[in-house]
Amino acid sequence: MLRIALDAMGGDNAPRNEIDGAISALRAANNRFEIALVGQERKLKSELASKDAGRLNLSIVHAEDVVSMHDAPAAVLRTKPDSSIVRALELHRDHVVDAFVSAGNTGAVMAASTLILGRIPGVSRPTIGSNFPNEQGVCILLDVGASVDCKPQHLYEFAVMGSIYAAQIFNCENPKVGLLSVGEEDTKGNEVTLAAMELLRRSNLNFIGNVEGRDILKGKAEVIVCDGFTGNIVLKFAESVTGLLKKKIKDYAAESLPKKIMAGIISGPLRKILGDMDYQKYGGVPLLGVNGVTIIGHGRSTPLAISNMILKAEEMALKKVNERIANALRPAVKQS
Amino acid sequence: MLRIALDAMGGDNAPRNEIDGAISALRAANNRFEIALVGQERKLKSELASKDAGRLNLSIVHAEDVVSMHDAPAAVLRTKPDSSIVRALELHRDHVVDAFVSAGNTGAVMAASTLILGRIPGVSRPTIGSNFPNEQGVCILLDVGASVDCKPQHLYEFAVMGSIYAAQIFNCENPKVGLLSVGEEDTKGNEVTLAAMELLRRSNLNFIGNVEGRDILKGKAEVIVCDGFTGNIVLKFAESVTGLLKKKIKDYAAESLPKKIMAGIISGPLRKILGDMDYQKYGGVPLLGVNGVTIIGHGRSTPLAISNMILKAEEMALKKVNERIANALRPAVKQS
Repeated sequence: MLRIALDAMGGDNAPRNEIDGAISALRAANNRFEIALVGQERKLKSELASKDAGRLNLSIVHAEDVVSMHDAPAAVLRTKPDSSIVRALELHRDHVVDAFVSAGNTGAVMAASTLILGRIPGVSRPTIGSNFPNEQGVCILLDVGASVDCKPQHLYEFAVMGSIYAAQIFNCENPKVGLLSVGEEDTKGNEVTLAAMELLRRSNLNFIGNVEGRDILKGKAEVIVCDGFTGNIVLKFAESVTGLLKKKIKDYAAESLPKKIMAGIISGPLRKILGDMDYQKYGGVPLLGVNGVTIIGHGRSTPLAISNMILKAEEMALKKVNERIANALRPAVKQS
Repeated sequence: MLRIALDAMGGDNAPRNEIDGAISALRAANNRFEIALVGQERKLKSELASKDAGRLNLSIVHAEDVVSMHDAPAAVLRTKPDSSIVRALELHRDHVVDAFVSAGNTGAVMAASTLILGRIPGVSRPTIGSNFPNEQGVCILLDVGASVDCKPQHLYEFAVMGSIYAAQIFNCENPKVGLLSVGEEDTKGNEVTLAAMELLRRSNLNFIGNVEGRDILKGKAEVIVCDGFTGNIVLKFAESVTGLLKKKIKDYAAESLPKKIMAGIISGPLRKILGDMDYQKYGGVPLLGVNGVTIIGHGRSTPLAISNMILKAEEMALKKVNERIANALRPAVKQS
């Protein structure tokens, strides 16, 4: 039976949202996997006491320390060795569990995952990919922040990893790969993308060339690669769009009573329509390239998001995404 | 009387939209400036014949060549010396007109403006700034594509130019300047932004530090600087958001008849609400740093957008944005 370690102390509302998410994931999955809640035992027990979770495959692994959003990511192994993040990743490294899920300090999860699990041979840098719902369905944009300054080879590796992820997780045969740039022609781009273009043109990926900012939501490619600086900014910008829209509707409602009523009529369906644009629904982003399955979520992850993250972790483990990445990048490394 | 040269052959629907835009700008401005329509005289005369524009300050300056979207930007001076873009910019260089407006080939307008008008002393690279409507009002993001690979000094200069633009055109006293990056702390960023951070911290701008992708629409700063690669991608992404929303509403309407009716009820107010998010409304973007006023618009600019571009060109000339940039960057250049 597959086992997943959940950082029960990670999110802004931990351990409540974590425990609620774990319970709903196990219920949705008919108890087909086990979840180890990693964190302060006393807190977890007291939170669990009020839940009807007796028949679920839930266990508790004690970890005394809690990593906060203010802890320096690179130092966590040294400063908080008995934290839920470090303990859970050690369980994963030692094959006690098959995957790790956290809504905690993203930088710390990333750094500790890389240090404790190590990189897949052939991977220069792990990458975080984020799902973007678009007009055609969904695509993965990577990197969105793991690697701010990238070399062309890194972008090539992101493309390989993203392509495998999309094939397995989106069930998309031969996913189209685009290079995020400032124009469609091969000659458009910055120094790094122009050099990456050559690597990608020579690869055996289904590479469609440059894509532009507007092509992400149009759904022109299932996999879009960029450096982590650009990707992080686009992701955070995208996440803020519904905020502006809500503000505009509020301003509109404040203009008059009929407009207020209209805004009320609108808000129901609009919420439903915008639901699809809700990045949280997709529940967490994978850290690709490390020797294990790590799914990272927002600090403000809801129980639904936590549950989605757990189910995604299961899927990544079952579909052997990492083995496929290792196979794909091994020859490329010898070649270069 | 102020004179503005309009590239009458520029946009996708030229010269019709250009002429309609020029007429409505002059009407809105009570004929207080003159517009020189630059382009193929015969075409312009025939288009004008059907309009009631006799009493407006409109003149025609003949230019035989038309620059298309496919012309190589850097070569236009050589390949199409008698084009509307080149002729209009020569008029501006020779002080026959005070500003230039074009919805034509952006690259060509940028290259020809830089070559014909030259740079303002102290400016290393001209920059294109784009307005972003946000929760607080509006901000200018620059660069959005003029300079894809930037040095820290370039970002500093963009900040100075953007700050002057915001002060004059947004009527915003001491505008807040943010550096677009991947985290709020000064230590977050890529190599270029980390070095730019030091220049900006030492400047006399109202610099608020790093801002993130989500802060653009939140309105955290009136001026946000980034390299042209990142800015171009964010701008094009932003422009595509309403497209996704429209697609989602269409899909929603297709689900059932009640939903179709609801979508119909929604669409009116929603269009009004989204109107504010319409980048076109803001009508064109300034090319800052060249020795003259150049306003660049989308190829698909409507007459309203053209009219807004003309009015913005007038404002930039009247408010002496370029003289202020020259004054601000002169000491900084000596200092470094």
